Order: sequence, then structure tokens, then C-alpha cells
Amino acid sequence: MSYIRLDNLRKHYTPQIPKVLESLPRVEVSTNYAPIEESVSAFFPATFGLPLLELKENFSSEELSAPSPLNVGVLLSGGQAPGGHNVIAGIFDALKSYHPASSLFGFLMGPGGLLKNQVRELTADVINAYRNSGGFDMIGSDRTKLEKKEDFDTALKVAHGLKLHALIIIGGDDSNTNAALLAEYCKAIGDPLRVIGCPKTIDGDLKNAWIEASFGFDTCAKVYGELIGNIQRDCYSSRKYWHFIKLMGRSASHLTLECALMTQPNVAIISEEIAAHNRSLGDIVSQLADVVVMRSERGMDFGSVLIPEGLVEFVPKMRLLIAELNKVLAENAHKLHLVKRTQILNYLAGKLSEESASFFLSLPKEMAYQLSMERDPHGNVQVSRIEIEELIVTMLKKELEKRRKKGEYKGNFSALTHFFGYEGRCSMPSNFDASYCYSLGRTASYLAIAGHSGYMAAVRNLVNHPSEWQPAGIPLTLMMHLEERKGALKAVIKKSLVDIEGAPFRYFRKHRHEWAEGISYHYPGPIQYFGPSAVCDNTTITLRLENHLDPEDEEYGSETLF
Amino acid sequence: MSYIRLDNLRKHYTPQIPKVLESLPRVEVSTNYAPIEESVSAFFPATFGLPLLELKENFSSEELSAPSPLNVGVLLSGGQAPGGHNVIAGIFDALKSYHPASSLFGFLMGPGGLLKNQVRELTADVINAYRNSGGFDMIGSDRTKLEKKEDFDTALKVAHGLKLHALIIIGGDDSNTNAALLAEYCKAIGDPLRVIGCPKTIDGDLKNAWIEASFGFDTCAKVYGELIGNIQRDCYSSRKYWHFIKLMGRSASHLTLECALMTQPNVAIISEEIAAHNRSLGDIVSQLADVVVMRSERGMDFGSVLIPEGLVEFVPKMRLLIAELNKVLAENAHKLHLVKRTQILNYLAGKLSEESASFFLSLPKEMAYQLSMERDPHGNVQVSRIEIEELIVTMLKKELEKRRKKGEYKGNFSALTHFFGYEGRCSMPSNFDASYCYSLGRTASYLAIAGHSGYMAAVRNLVNHPSEWQPAGIPLTLMMHLEERKGALKAVIKKSLVDIEGAPFRYFRKHRHEWAEGISYHYPGPIQYFGPSAVCDNTTITLRLENHLDPEDEEYGSETLF
Repeated sequence: MSYIRLDNLRKHYTPQIPKVLESLPRVEVSTNYAPIEESVSAFFPATFGLPLLELKENFSSEELSAPSPLNVGVLLSGGQAPGGHNVIAGIFDALKSYHPASSLFGFLMGPGGLLKNQVRELTADVINAYRNSGGFDMIGSDRTKLEKKEDFDTALKVAHGLKLHALIIIGGDDSNTNAALLAEYCKAIGDPLRVIGCPKTIDGDLKNAWIEASFGFDTCAKVYGELIGNIQRDCYSSRKYWHFIKLMGRSASHLTLECALMTQPNVAIISEEIAAHNRSLGDIVSQLADVVVMRSERGMDFGSVLIPEGLVEFVPKMRLLIAELNKVLAENAHKLHLVKRTQILNYLAGKLSEESASFFLSLPKEMAYQLSMERDPHGNVQVSRIEIEELIVTMLKKELEKRRKKGEYKGNFSALTHFFGYEGRCSMPSNFDASYCYSLGRTASYLAIAGHSGYMAAVRNLVNHPSEWQPAGIPLTLMMHLEERKGALKAVIKKSLVDIEGAPFRYFRKHRHEWAEGISYHYPGPIQYFGPSAVCDNTTITLRLENHLDPEDEEYGSETLF
Repeated sequence: MSYIRLDNLRKHYTPQIPKVLESLPRVEVSTNYAPIEESVSAFFPATFGLPLLELKENFSSEELSAPSPLNVGVLLSGGQAPGGHNVIAGIFDALKSYHPASSLFGFLMGPGGLLKNQVRELTADVINAYRNSGGFDMIGSDRTKLEKKEDFDTALKVAHGLKLHALIIIGGDDSNTNAALLAEYCKAIGDPLRVIGCPKTIDGDLKNAWIEASFGFDTCAKVYGELIGNIQRDCYSSRKYWHFIKLMGRSASHLTLECALMTQPNVAIISEEIAAHNRSLGDIVSQLADVVVMRSERGMDFGSVLIPEGLVEFVPKMRLLIAELNKVLAENAHKLHLVKRTQILNYLAGKLSEESASFFLSLPKEMAYQLSMERDPHGNVQVSRIEIEELIVTMLKKELEKRRKKGEYKGNFSALTHFFGYEGRCSMPSNFDASYCYSLGRTASYLAIAGHSGYMAAVRNLVNHPSEWQPAGIPLTLMMHLEERKGALKAVIKKSLVDIEGAPFRYFRKHRHEWAEGISYHYPGPIQYFGPSAVCDNTTITLRLENHLDPEDEEYGSETLF
């Protein structure tokens, strides 16, 4: 029997692209004007107020007479997201089709590589080896922040050395805010470098009226959805475990909500709802206990619970504790190594407010150590290392024992915990993300070719067939608002949290009681690349709901399914 | 865009079957005679020495004149494995095509359901809802053992009540050993019930000269392989973590070995090798430290390590400790609740041998508690709850710090751990497992139809195209040998461990140094159902190697790939 590895075959997949991008498009000022946060203008005197751009099919080839080659630099910033390599491939293909002598340079290991002038020319051989693959390993990534004048001057020196016409920054909200700052700086000092951003993040929180989804979210949700579905099937088959599944995602709970819509678990905790109703961890545990007891009475001593990683930041007491700990740890950084491990908890508690100290000391020891010992490169508490799922299980066991003593609970409770994050961030992109990213890359190139700067590449109309997608350029400053950061007001791209009045959450709220009471599990299975388009090319249920499509409405379309 | 859920569409997939099974086959005595463990014969006077059977294409329809309907019972025994539902669908379809008035009954929640006469007729509606789906939830499973005369009498009473002609037991080595005991009992007392077994287990340890693979192993390895590949891509992209990935599987390391062959990690620990060379946990950690240091010197402070869950049972000290603990816990079961949690470790240590006690008290506290508090339904230490991966990381950190002090190590070591088990056991079966299981089910029915008992259904020649697969019946007693169980010799089906002189391990051994030193990662990606057969229908690398096929030899075949 013939035999071939999917990762090899997948390199030959041709992403689907909007009809508009099949040849060099015209970049036009859109007639759609959007509301604007005027307060941002003071921070961006040179680039504020740019118009929205739309890419349109180009029917004549005359408009671009004698084009000259374009040199572009690209970098990946922040955490991995499926499809990053395809953004780069899209940038490359558009540049080369515009002018074969154009060059693309990749900065190695993120913004840090730009500042250190660590760079690699991305030739066709390199690009072809990474088409449709997961990961960021083609050029790597890091979390260096480009935000100071010196950084910009260094970056520009490097860009000049390479004779770059444009720099494309692929990153999340912060990285794109920094792209806007660099674009502003260039415009202000009269440097012709064009700066374009691309919306990346598995968390799904870089979205707004203009950006329908950040790339990688679709694939990640599908990988986690596959695993949750498998675990739920196990749970239902063996009927003896409660599975508590934590999903990656700082702050926003979009991933958890999408996974809940995909898999219909018995419980899904959405941080934004917890915050909106100012619920404590005790409240969460008490509600969980209600569901465990109710299911047990119906003969079901099993179930599934989804927990967003960012929950810790939304539980008021925990948020306060983390903020205080970050401060205490920073102020005492030079002394901490002198404190014995057995003393560290009391040492830190002594420096916290009374409320936080008593909460801190009431936590399971392992967790208190996690909070105090493990820090990220910025010296902050590493939220992803906090085992909130273990804490919830520990508290829930106690609550159930309390109810058992009162005669309110007679079941068996056996819990297993899981954390999915690294399992999805570098997955091969789904067809959707492969095509979306590739289209984003092409769009970014066309914006740069047309001479624009200070824009985010966007592709819209994403619930439709890719041929109907609409590429656009969104002024970075248009997505900003003012936020207090380290005591000062700053203009930043607004992080989008789950809107508890939005269609996806409302759908969840409408169905969750039914999901809690019985067995409504869905088993999404693995991402498919080759099958019927109705299975392989669709994007998230979140986007379907935001576009007034019912996830229960399956349509088989007219294609042959087997 | 049309939209459809994979789990719904997948119900309509038609498994591929051997040409032989396309119509009612003849069941013939095979001319291949196999060596036999004569010592087993004393335990199976009535059924020992049955011949091997082969299913052959039936060219004439005359042989089965006037068939009458057959009533068959089926049950699932033990842990979930992908494809269980397809075995049942295969049994059903074969019975119905033999005679439309045949009936299939499913015992609910495993052998326990048989003894309690909890049963459900499996009609076409039921079967169709579960075709090609994961899980065992159609009828459930448990771990009740059928091994005593009273159990057999109860089972026969239930079988008579349902007018069963045959009982098909889908399970692992122990469940099939029990199937053999029941078949022997029937023959001995002259009961006409036919008993047929099917080889199930994700661990892959139910295989031998006649059974090429147990079902579920292929799918599970592929699900874990997808996740390991994704994590390795993340590891290589961010270049800052060592990932320690534990994989489910009591005893045998087949799953870990197959996953290593699929993903080419930096290190994979194979329990059977550890045991063969009598290595201690300290030896393992020291070798790991060598790899970490070597990679660090080459600028790679990242890597991947696969750890089989069953390792704990192969490390001599740990095995001894677990055996002693099981004994101590059993002997003191009635007193344990009187011991305070803070005292339990010392209490238990006081009852262990000196060697085990000092090892027990040297373990990280959390782990010592796991060993002492969590037990399975038989009162034994729950191996799957033992966080051997955490223990290894803790020990490795210490070892690296020691080397750092000696100036032998200058790197950064940051470790993340994962455990994959429940993520794979109930996955939708791969095309391979869907077809293999369905064919096993049909084979089981045909063996029963032809009047045989005491056989395991088998399908062989599995690296070839399904149309060329060869269905067979293997006498259950042929696979047995004598083992000491609870102090007495028993005839049981031999568990197959990784053969460190077999082709799969030799391939691994040949390449592992190269995998340790650089970046040879493979990224298998998710299981595909619809694409080219070369991608979707192949089985494991283990089977390829056992059949002298090189996993590096990719052939694209003649089909159109896109």
C-alpha cells in the first residue's frame, strides 16, 4: 500500500483565496466610515484619522506601469498561533508576483531579532518547506517589546541597511499597538518605511468591528475541541469520572466559549460572566457542586467542565492577590533568594494586605508556591502555571463532603484534570486558517505595495466561501482606546473580551442548563483537510453565531460527500 | 457555505473489508499448524488443540442451504478502545446478511451486565447511530471478571433465557482468557453456546504470531502522535521548554515506541529496555541529564521526552515498593482510616522492607501520598495516578543543579509535563481501525455461524490494502502460556511486551542518537479520513517495520492527491 506522511503532503496544498486577490488588486479608500475614539488622536498626531481601505478586483493591468521591486521585512511576535507560516507565504507570493526581483527578509526570533539585525532572506526554497505547516520555527518569535524611541531608531537603522520598503509585524494586540507606534514614528520623522500589522492570537481577543477573527483561533479551538470531545466520549463510556479541562488563554474566554459551543460540556466557566456578576471562587464551586449533585441524583456520577486559564485573573480575590504579589515580588526581587523555601509563604504573606494574606495562606500549599516561585520574563506571576483546575477540584471535594454529611449528596466523585495549551498553538493550520493566513499575508503585501503604512491587514466576510472573502486595510489607530498602564494613560488596541450580551454567549446561556442536566455531548473529531468543504472549510461556531447562523442547521450542500 | 459536523457525517462511512468477507465465507481448517504450549492442555482438556481456521471466499452459495436465524450476545470488557462500536456493527451486519431474522443482544456495562442480565437488543437503528464512532457508550463496559464456575452458570442461564447461540466477548488478554475458560466450561458440560473473542486494547500488548495488532492501538497512537508533534513544533518554535510527555499504557511500551517512531522525539524511554538492563530511576535521570547538557551546549535549551505510564512497574525499586505497598494496604485496609494524613507516610513506611521504606520516604511528598491514598477498585495502587513524569523532572532538576555546580552545565532548564490517555481512548477510529474492527466483527460472526467456539477472531496481512486482508480464527488456548498468579500457576493469554530485539525497537535504537542530538521532529498532524489512501488508510509504523517496510520510504502511489 502506498504510504505518505501528512506533514509532507500538506506542503502542496493550495490555500483558497478571495477572488479579489487572484491578481494584483486595487487598494481603494472605502466609503464605510467608522466611529473614532478622538482621545487617541493626541497619541498619534501623524497617523490618526487614516481612512479604511478596501482591496478591489483589478480589471485593467495598466494602472501599475513599470513597477519596481519591493524589499519587505517580516517578523513574528509573541506566542505561536497556527498559520503564521502561511501569512509569510502569502506575503512572499504577492511580492514575487508583483515583481520577481522583490525580496522578503525574516527577522529571527521576533522583534528581538530585528533589534539585533538577525535576519535571513526568505527564498522560495525556504517558503516552500513551510507552506501550510504549524509553528513559528521558520523564523521564530519572542516577546521583545518595540515601544521606545531607541528601539525605533535601531529598527530603522536595520531596515535601512536592508533597504526595506516595508516591515510587516505579525502579532497580537500589544504587538500591533507597537506597529502603530513605529508607523507613527516613521511618519513623524519623515522615514518612508511602511509598517503593516497582521492580527494573530489563539486567544481570539484581537477582534472588533473590523477584524472578524485573529488567526490561529480557529485551529486551536478545533484541536482542543477534538480532545474535549474524546474525553467526553470516554467520560460517557466509563461513567465514573468528572473531567476538569483547563484551556489556554490569558484574559478572554473566547476559546473556552468556542470549545463549549463545539462540544456541549456539562459546565463551562466563562470568566467574563464571573466578573460581570462579581462571583467568588466559592460561588463557582457551589454552582459546580449543584450540578454534580443533580447529575448524581440522575445516576450520572460523571461529567465535563471547561475552565479558561485566565479565570484566575477574573476572580476578584485572586486578581487582587496576583496584583499584590507582582508588586511584592518586584520590590523584593533582590532579597527573595535569601528566604528559605519553608519560610517563603509566610514571608510574602507578611507583605500583603490582610485580605490577600489570609486568602494566600488558605490556598493549597502547592498552589501558593506556584504563585510565589514561578515568574514570567517580566517578573510577573505565571498565570499559565497556576493550577486553578486543581484548586477548584480540591474546593469542590470539600463542598461535596459537606453536602454528603448533610445528607444532600450520596454519589461518588472522582476527578481528573487536564490542561490544553501547547497541544494546539503549533498545530498545522486548518484549511480555514491556512487560507485566511495566506490571504492576510497577500493583503499585507498589497497594502505595502500600494504605499500604505499604519494599517492592519484584514480579511472579512469569513463565514462565506473564501472566494467571497473581502480583503481590507484597517487603520491601527482606529482600533485603539485609552487604557491606564503602569499609572499612565496609553493608547492601545482594545482587547476584546467575551461579550455576555453577544450572540455566542447568549446561545451558550440558552442551552447550558440542558447540557448540564443530561448528555448533549458533541464529538467534533480531528481537523479534516481533504473531505467535503462543508466539513473541512468552515470556521468557528462563534463566527457562525455572530453572523446569525444556527450551529444546529447542518446543510449537506450539493457536493458528493464520499 | 454548507456546514456539517464530522461526527454526523462519519456515520455514513463504509468500512473497507477483505474481499473474502464480501459474501458469506467458508470457514476452513488451515494447513498452517503452529507450535503449542503443551503445559496449557491440562487447564483446557476439552478445547485444547483446536485447529487454526481460515476464512475463504465462498464461490458457491449451495453450501448453506436453509440457514436458520442466529441469536448472538455481545459485550465490551475493560478499557475503551477506538473501534469497539464497529466490531459490533460488523457482527450485526454479518448476522443480518446471513439471516435477516437473526438477533444481536448487547449486554450493558460489560461482563457485569451479562451476570445481571442487563441487556438491550441492538437493532439497525441503534447500530446505525454508532457506526464509525469512538467510545463504548452504545452498551458500555466494565472490569468484572468472568472466571468462576458460578459466573459461568449465571452467564449460561442468561444466555439460555435469550436463546443465544453464541456470545462474543470484546476485550484484552484477561477478558479473552476468560472467554476461553467459558468456552471450555461449555464444551465440558455439553452446553452448545459458542464463545468467540475479539482482540481489543490500546496498549497493543495483545499481539503474537497470529494476532498482528489489537484494535484501537492504531487510532490511539495517532491521536497521541498528533499532540506530541504539535508540542514538538511548539518546543522548536519557542525554544525554551523541555516537554515531558507521559503516555497511557500499563506494562507494555508499545504506544510510546510507536509514538516515538511517528514523531522522532529527543528521548523516548522504553520500559522493557529499562528492565532488560536493570536500570534504576537514577540511571534514567542521569542519561536524561546527559542529553539536556549536550543539547544545551549546542544552543538548544529545549526538547521532548516520551515516558510510558507503565515505567513505574519496570523500575526495580519502584516495582518492589508498589508490590509491598499493595500488600500492606490490603492487610491494613480496615485500619487506614484511623491514621492521620500527616502520619500516613511514616505509618506505611514502618510496615515496608528497609529498602522500600527508605525509597518511599525519599520520594516527593505529593507522590508518596499518591502511592498511599489512591487505589483502584481492586485495592491496588493506581499506576495511572502516579506522576512518574513529575518525579523524573524533580530528580532531573536536582541532577542538573549538581552538574551546574561542577561547571558541567550552563543552560536554562524549564520543564512542562503532559499526560495523554483519556484524550485518545475514545477517539473516532481511524479508517484503519474502523475497517479492521468492522472486519473483526464480521469474522467473529462467521466463526459463530460456522459453529466454532473457543476462538479469537483475527484479521491478518494488515499492512496491505484491506481488500487483501485475511480473516482467520485463532484457538484461544494456542496463545496461552502458564503464569503464576496469586501464588498459583494459571494458563493465560501471554501479554506481549516490546521485544528489544524486534524490528521496531531496533529502528528506534539505530536512530535515537541522531534524534537526541538535533531536531528530527516529525509532525504527524490529525487523523485524516477523506484524503488519499496513502495518507488515510495506513496503519502503524510498528506494523510497517515488523513487515520489513521502511518508514522513510514514502510512495505517492498513482492516485490523485488533491
